[in-house]
Amino acid sequence: MKRVMLTVAYDGTNYCGWQVQPKKTTVQGILNEKLSILLKEDIAVIGASRTDSGVHAYGNVAVFDTNTLIPSDKISYAINQHLPGDIVVQNSREVTGDFHPRHCNCIKTYEYSIYNAPFPNPIRCRYSHFVYYSFDIEAMQQAAVYFLGEHDFKSFCSAGSQVKDTVRRIDVLEVMKNGKLITIRIKGNGFLYNMVRIIAGTLMQVGKGHYLPEHVKDIIDALDRHEAGPTAPAKGLTLVEIIYDEGKV
Amino acid sequence: MKRVMLTVAYDGTNYCGWQVQPKKTTVQGILNEKLSILLKEDIAVIGASRTDSGVHAYGNVAVFDTNTLIPSDKISYAINQHLPGDIVVQNSREVTGDFHPRHCNCIKTYEYSIYNAPFPNPIRCRYSHFVYYSFDIEAMQQAAVYFLGEHDFKSFCSAGSQVKDTVRRIDVLEVMKNGKLITIRIKGNGFLYNMVRIIAGTLMQVGKGHYLPEHVKDIIDALDRHEAGPTAPAKGLTLVEIIYDEGKV
Repeated sequence: MKRVMLTVAYDGTNYCGWQVQPKKTTVQGILNEKLSILLKEDIAVIGASRTDSGVHAYGNVAVFDTNTLIPSDKISYAINQHLPGDIVVQNSREVTGDFHPRHCNCIKTYEYSIYNAPFPNPIRCRYSHFVYYSFDIEAMQQAAVYFLGEHDFKSFCSAGSQVKDTVRRIDVLEVMKNGKLITIRIKGNGFLYNMVRIIAGTLMQVGKGHYLPEHVKDIIDALDRHEAGPTAPAKGLTLVEIIYDEGKV
Repeated sequence: MKRVMLTVAYDGTNYCGWQVQPKKTTVQGILNEKLSILLKEDIAVIGASRTDSGVHAYGNVAVFDTNTLIPSDKISYAINQHLPGDIVVQNSREVTGDFHPRHCNCIKTYEYSIYNAPFPNPIRCRYSHFVYYSFDIEAMQQAAVYFLGEHDFKSFCSAGSQVKDTVRRIDVLEVMKNGKLITIRIKGNGFLYNMVRIIAGTLMQVGKGHYLPEHVKDIIDALDRHEAGPTAPAKGLTLVEIIYDEGKV
C-alpha cells in the first residue's frame, strides 16, 4: 500500500465544485470514478481544497492510497487518458503514509480575475468576472495592505461555515492591472469558506469608491460577515498553487 | 439609410467559422439573425475577415446598411442583449456609405497561442494549442525575421484558395514566451487563406529543430505550399484587431 499525491488542474465551469455530492458531477467524484477504473481498486481521494461550484484550479492537491504496481510518477500519464479534457492531472508522486493534504501546513495561492471594460470579452469570460465600471486600482492596493499578517478573518467567512478558529495569516495580497485585466493575487496559510471571494468583493467596493481603503481595518475588527463586501462570483477565482512544508511530503 | 460598422469579439469554439453556410451555426449567421430581429429589417453583414471554424476574434469588423433610428453608437448595447454570450459587439459607429471592410486598406493583427508544458492546462486549452515538446524560442525569433516585409506568400496559402495575387506585407512578427505560454504576434496588410496558421506551423517546425531558421527564406522562395510546415490548429488563433486608414472610415 502506498499514498500517492496528485496535483490537479480543472476548469470548474461544468462542475458542482470539488466535493462528492449525490447526483451531482464533481471533480472529486470524477477522480474517484476514473482512478477506480484505472487501478481496479475502490479509490477515494482526499482533497486539499474543497473548491466551490464554478471555481477553477491549476494546482489543487489530492491524495489516495493504492496497491497499484504503476510507478507513482506515471499515474498522471495513465489517469489523464481516462479523464475528461477539463480535468488534467499535472503531477503524481508518492508521499509518506501520514501526509494529509488538509492537516499539514501549507501555503496556498489564489488568483481572482476581473475583466474591466465597457463590454465583456467572450474569450475571457469563462475565467474572469466582468465589470464595466472603472476601478481606482491605487485605492485597492492601499486597502490590500490591511489584510496582510495574522488576523481573525471572521468578517470574511460565509455564514454557512462551522469552523471555530477563524484566525488566518495572509502573506501576499497584490492587485495588478494589465490592460483590461485586473488580477488579485493572494497567498496565505489557509482560507475560510468563501474568504478569497469576500476579500475580492470587498476590494471591489474600495475600487468603486464605496469604502475608503482604511475602512478594511474596521471590517476586520468588526468580526461580522455583514460588514464586508459581497462574495465575488466563483468563475473569477482560480486556486493556483499549494506548497507544503518540505519535511511533510 | 446609413452604414454601420461593428467591432465583433467571439469565442469561435462553437461556431463553424464566420461565414454563413447552410444548416451550420456561424458568427455571420447569428449576427444577421439577431440584427434583423432587433432592427426589424433584413440585415446582411459583410465581414472583414472570414475566420475559419474554431478561430477566435477580439476585433473582427462587420458592416451593414440600415434605416434604423437607433443611434449608431447605441446599436452595440442593444444588439448585445440579443446575442449569445460567446459573441459580443465591442463597438458600433456610422461609416461612409462606400466603406467596405475587405476592399479598404487596413492593418490586421493576429495572435497564435501555444501552451507549452508536460500536460495541458484545462483553463488555457480553449484558446491555445497544447504542445508538450520544448521549443527553441530564439531559433523561432530568428526565423520570424525572414517573414518581414513584402513577399509572395504562395507557400503559406492553403491549396483551397482561389486568390491570384499572393503578395502580402508583414510588418511585425514577434515570438514571445511568458511562463508556459508562447505567443506569436503578427501584423500585416492582409493574409491569405490559412496564412497565419501555416506561418505558426512553420515556426513550430523551426522551434522543434526540424528546420533551420534560414530555411524560411527557401520556403518563401519555393512558392509551393508543400515546402512550408503544417497548418497549426484553429483554436490557438485569435484575430486581435483591424485598423483601417483613417480617411476611409
